[in-house]
Amino acid sequence: MIKAGIIGATGYAGVELVRILLRHPQVTLAAVSSVSFEGQPICDVYPSLREICELPCRSADDVIAESDVIFAALPHGLSQDTAKACADAGKKFIDLGADFRLDDPEQYESWYQSEYRYDDLHKSAVYGLCEMFREDIQKTSIIGNPGCYPTSVALGLAPALKNKLVSPVGIVVDSKSGTTGAGRKPTQTTHFPDCADAFSAYKVASHRHTPEIEQTLSKLAGETATITFVPHLLPVNRGILSTIYAKLQDGVTEEQIRTAYNAAYAGERFVRVMPKGQAVNIRHVQCSNYCDIQLYVDEHTRLLVVTSVIDNMVKGAAGQAIQNMNLLFGLPEGTGLNMIPLSF
Amino acid sequence: MIKAGIIGATGYAGVELVRILLRHPQVTLAAVSSVSFEGQPICDVYPSLREICELPCRSADDVIAESDVIFAALPHGLSQDTAKACADAGKKFIDLGADFRLDDPEQYESWYQSEYRYDDLHKSAVYGLCEMFREDIQKTSIIGNPGCYPTSVALGLAPALKNKLVSPVGIVVDSKSGTTGAGRKPTQTTHFPDCADAFSAYKVASHRHTPEIEQTLSKLAGETATITFVPHLLPVNRGILSTIYAKLQDGVTEEQIRTAYNAAYAGERFVRVMPKGQAVNIRHVQCSNYCDIQLYVDEHTRLLVVTSVIDNMVKGAAGQAIQNMNLLFGLPEGTGLNMIPLSF
Amino acid sequence: MIKAGIIGATGYAGVELVRILLRHPQVTLAAVSSVSFEGQPICDVYPSLREICELPCRSADDVIAESDVIFAALPHGLSQDTAKACADAGKKFIDLGADFRLDDPEQYESWYQSEYRYDDLHKSAVYGLCEMFREDIQKTSIIGNPGCYPTSVALGLAPALKNKLVSPVGIVVDSKSGTTGAGRKPTQTTHFPDCADAFSAYKVASHRHTPEIEQTLSKLAGETATITFVPHLLPVNRGILSTIYAKLQDGVTEEQIRTAYNAAYAGERFVRVMPKGQAVNIRHVQCSNYCDIQLYVDEHTRLLVVTSVIDNMVKGAAGQAIQNMNLLFGLPEGTGLNMIPLSF
Amino acid sequence: MIKAGIIGATGYAGVELVRILLRHPQVTLAAVSSVSFEGQPICDVYPSLREICELPCRSADDVIAESDVIFAALPHGLSQDTAKACADAGKKFIDLGADFRLDDPEQYESWYQSEYRYDDLHKSAVYGLCEMFREDIQKTSIIGNPGCYPTSVALGLAPALKNKLVSPVGIVVDSKSGTTGAGRKPTQTTHFPDCADAFSAYKVASHRHTPEIEQTLSKLAGETATITFVPHLLPVNRGILSTIYAKLQDGVTEEQIRTAYNAAYAGERFVRVMPKGQAVNIRHVQCSNYCDIQLYVDEHTRLLVVTSVIDNMVKGAAGQAIQNMNLLFGLPEGTGLNMIPLSF
Repeated sequence: MIKAGIIGATGYAGVELVRILLRHPQVTLAAVSSVSFEGQPICDVYPSLREICELPCRSADDVIAESDVIFAALPHGLSQDTAKACADAGKKFIDLGADFRLDDPEQYESWYQSEYRYDDLHKSAVYGLCEMFREDIQKTSIIGNPGCYPTSVALGLAPALKNKLVSPVGIVVDSKSGTTGAGRKPTQTTHFPDCADAFSAYKVASHRHTPEIEQTLSKLAGETATITFVPHLLPVNRGILSTIYAKLQDGVTEEQIRTAYNAAYAGERFVRVMPKGQAVNIRHVQCSNYCDIQLYVDEHTRLLVVTSVIDNMVKGAAGQAIQNMNLLFGLPEGTGLNMIPLSF
Repeated sequence: MIKAGIIGATGYAGVELVRILLRHPQVTLAAVSSVSFEGQPICDVYPSLREICELPCRSADDVIAESDVIFAALPHGLSQDTAKACADAGKKFIDLGADFRLDDPEQYESWYQSEYRYDDLHKSAVYGLCEMFREDIQKTSIIGNPGCYPTSVALGLAPALKNKLVSPVGIVVDSKSGTTGAGRKPTQTTHFPDCADAFSAYKVASHRHTPEIEQTLSKLAGETATITFVPHLLPVNRGILSTIYAKLQDGVTEEQIRTAYNAAYAGERFVRVMPKGQAVNIRHVQCSNYCDIQLYVDEHTRLLVVTSVIDNMVKGAAGQAIQNMNLLFGLPEGTGLNMIPLSF
Repeated sequence: MIKAGIIGATGYAGVELVRILLRHPQVTLAAVSSVSFEGQPICDVYPSLREICELPCRSADDVIAESDVIFAALPHGLSQDTAKACADAGKKFIDLGADFRLDDPEQYESWYQSEYRYDDLHKSAVYGLCEMFREDIQKTSIIGNPGCYPTSVALGLAPALKNKLVSPVGIVVDSKSGTTGAGRKPTQTTHFPDCADAFSAYKVASHRHTPEIEQTLSKLAGETATITFVPHLLPVNRGILSTIYAKLQDGVTEEQIRTAYNAAYAGERFVRVMPKGQAVNIRHVQCSNYCDIQLYVDEHTRLLVVTSVIDNMVKGAAGQAIQNMNLLFGLPEGTGLNMIPLSF
Repeated sequence: MIKAGIIGATGYAGVELVRILLRHPQVTLAAVSSVSFEGQPICDVYPSLREICELPCRSADDVIAESDVIFAALPHGLSQDTAKACADAGKKFIDLGADFRLDDPEQYESWYQSEYRYDDLHKSAVYGLCEMFREDIQKTSIIGNPGCYPTSVALGLAPALKNKLVSPVGIVVDSKSGTTGAGRKPTQTTHFPDCADAFSAYKVASHRHTPEIEQTLSKLAGETATITFVPHLLPVNRGILSTIYAKLQDGVTEEQIRTAYNAAYAGERFVRVMPKGQAVNIRHVQCSNYCDIQLYVDEHTRLLVVTSVIDNMVKGAAGQAIQNMNLLFGLPEGTGLNMIPLSF
């Protein structure tokens, strides 16, 4: 059994890790930490866990000491020292924050106003988008788990970009996310009376996931990709839908698009290309590790429109992190991740 | 492996059975039926199931022929012939409808305007409230799976009634249910624009679960129990909260109450008596088979106030039905039911 | 024109006062205050008000100086000094907080852990339940505007108690309120991901509105009334539904009940007794000053069940306060309050 | 007083007309019709209207006979005969359906599979986007009231197109609408359990509002405009947010954009250009006739991003129709439309 530990277990991504790992057949949840609730059992914070998991919240150091693999769900900037401590102790490390996602130190420092430390750790870290970088993941010990929006966009565009079916330049990404993406800490924006029956865009063309998305799309395309990224806050808890608009290359047909996507994802356990006529819906992937994709060709303007949905807290955070853990430990990629999406 | 079949699989209770049975370690889902969608794969009706369960919807006869145990989620009145067919074929039968819940034929006929047929089947049928009637359940082949509201109320009151701590007469039951209880068929009441931001009582003191609740409470009390039952429609999908008001017998203290509940449910896998100060919430049991209970003594008016929550589609329908199946087949009661409630 | 001022204008009750008073034909909104946003225009806090009301938030003293009538929407305990200042300046004062609702100083001090000051002010203050105490209201200058829950309960029970149709003892009040009742300040309980799809009881048999409700019911009954009061938090913004259970006196019939209610409210502009068969719904009163009432007699247990709905922020706060203002100034009671409830 | 009548008064747009017209100072609501509820008072269908409007639902002919101006909220195809009858009777006619929006008969017939009749009526009809075509509106008697999505898009882009600041070709319009846009008739898509916590795109690049939007944008640009239009269904009742992406012409700066919008809308009662930094939100316009606009320049990709919000049932339907009526009768454009958006 793998001993797994979670640093920052009382945030939403953290407690979703708890929920999934408790039922993983090859994992023992060894220890959890929380700065805000140190000393309290986690079921005091999440009464849903009573009689199921009553582990006390401990310190980050305790978690590292007790675990073979450490998941960290921390505010950006704080994961680098944790990664260092894990590396020094010979433990595997999966970061759900942003510290190990960007290759370029300058981009990291400019978008996150944070220092880029431990150069060798960053060099050995792999961006954990399993479907794309599976082989590199299997060889490393430090994973930068992808952001939620970037996961939905990269999976939604990969076959089109790899097969040169669309232009990588000037892609429009209009994304809509549930409120759990904003975290567990109450704010005015996520206060129920302000957030229910409301809908707005935020961080228009200035969200920190922009460089992360462009980095991945550029790798997939083999050339520089540029996007305009506009996220919106949906009055639901779970789910991201990204509507992506890319210019079709001359002569590309809907059939070619569909063939490329079906081929690319035929063997993928967690990506479902929907048959023509079946819209994707955040509802259809909720509480599961799936990414569902639908494709449209607008002949009128020669755009490819991709709609891509994930559960932001599963495929967009905890589930994908566990998929990465499975790869790190040589387990079948879907182990412990066989959750069926809610029907309603 | 137990071959399980579902009649009425495209209703909400039916598809929740699908979702849970697909992950039950001792079950193979043998066949499903649907009158509305016969011939179509169930994943066309619930795209969430694509690549997970693509079974075609067949006829009820096919389901009976292919299965060791048949679950029926049908409108009331229609289960009796199905039960007869199952009995004739030597198959076990679990009815999620109301046809096998009431002992008294006259009550059934008066509340359901339906005929009570196959007397011997009714006599052999057991009311499947597992925590109360476990021994009888193990000896039968026909289960009347309890209604959603009655489950929340019976579990909420059992220790108080059995221990004569409250009066069984004049109990007030104020229940609030999510919209899935109203079924999958669109109606004006459950039309999103009419139902969102709305809240109302319905079938005040005239809901069909009234005699079912009184029947169970009377058995628990060992004397005739009477209730005023008022259900309300909550603008959420899943969950029932029942707030129950019962007159305390003279001299009964909060400590006696709490002791009785803790003793009664100490060994129960699916009933959690919350520690004092921790309110129950439909959120804390969503997508799980738990019933959470909290207790209050109002000294001012000498009432016991019980709050009891379940997921109406799990403990109130599909989950409890599978718990019954486990009992029928001599499996540990929690097999296949280890779902952890959602944290958010 | 009446010059009206609002102290605490950026809370939910405060800004609802702004919204209604801006369209009141006899009122000029003279000044508003806010401790948190002093110096900023109110449309920076509520962008919905841009180009409609760009008044700056000023100090409470400014508001008193500029206004003929002062509305205060403040945390309890803070209104007494404001009332004193208004009285000294010869201004009328309408308190939306709890400081002037309870007659009994001991009750106030025990339920609110706050000191009862300015005895003469308290003696001159009138409880502003317009439909019941209209004549006293017209003679005073200080109004204690009723709490939201107490308004729904008092209007729901008044005709039954006044006509001795039910017992005033042992009444059960099961109330459900939208989240705006919890105020504008973000908390964990009202954090969207924790509050959506959730439902729970809170302050069971210990909510501060209990003595206020009992005080009013006792006045209506002419003898001591006792209640068990259990509030619940609904995942909607606006609206309270109270389901009220009272013992029918011997021999009382549904017809007598219905006749009494129709008679009592025939001339009331803001109370609608629904015809038999038409359920009340928080939706039907949203954004209006109506209280809708429906009546049921449970012959089985001899209980009267009343369902009563209001918009907690209008009839339960700002609307009723303006109705009181109209009485104080001798205007027709409905002036400026002709809002039609939303149809959806 | 203008005698106004509504054909199709029990649909959502119809009843919103009722709600607003009842408070219009220059209007008497003369008669309403409904095919489904003929003979019943409208307050039986919408209990919110009890004691406020108890008009019986009559026939369309009755409405025409009793009114000076007729609003029709009918399924497409059915308004043309009504328009003819109104014209023959010398009454003004405002169509909330699609029959009088498109100039080109072929487009109408191809997108709506419906016949284009009464050529002269179509020629005299004016597209009722008040802010753009005010002068033509004042001269006609037949108005094609704009669609909800087209209103949000046309107002959102007009100053940019008129001033040649963006390219009219290849505009991406990603719109999100509340559920009332789908109408009052229950469907599976708008069934609460299927619609709550859900989000999806629909009619991708094939929605009937596409030619209507392109027609208006082309008029504004003075050349052919093309769009890719993708609508999405939001789990809220009211509101549309359109996020619009258009290519900036060379050298155009954010300052130029902002100047053009502020100039264009400076005198407009119902269009608010938000100050920089203040996001628009469907919440900020709910239940009002406002359109709020915010502007972003993405220098990285040289796109203008416009976010534009309206209440789909007010500015996107009933409110704009009444604004048109005011123009037809020479009243100040905002008469009866001074509703303040809800603060929560």
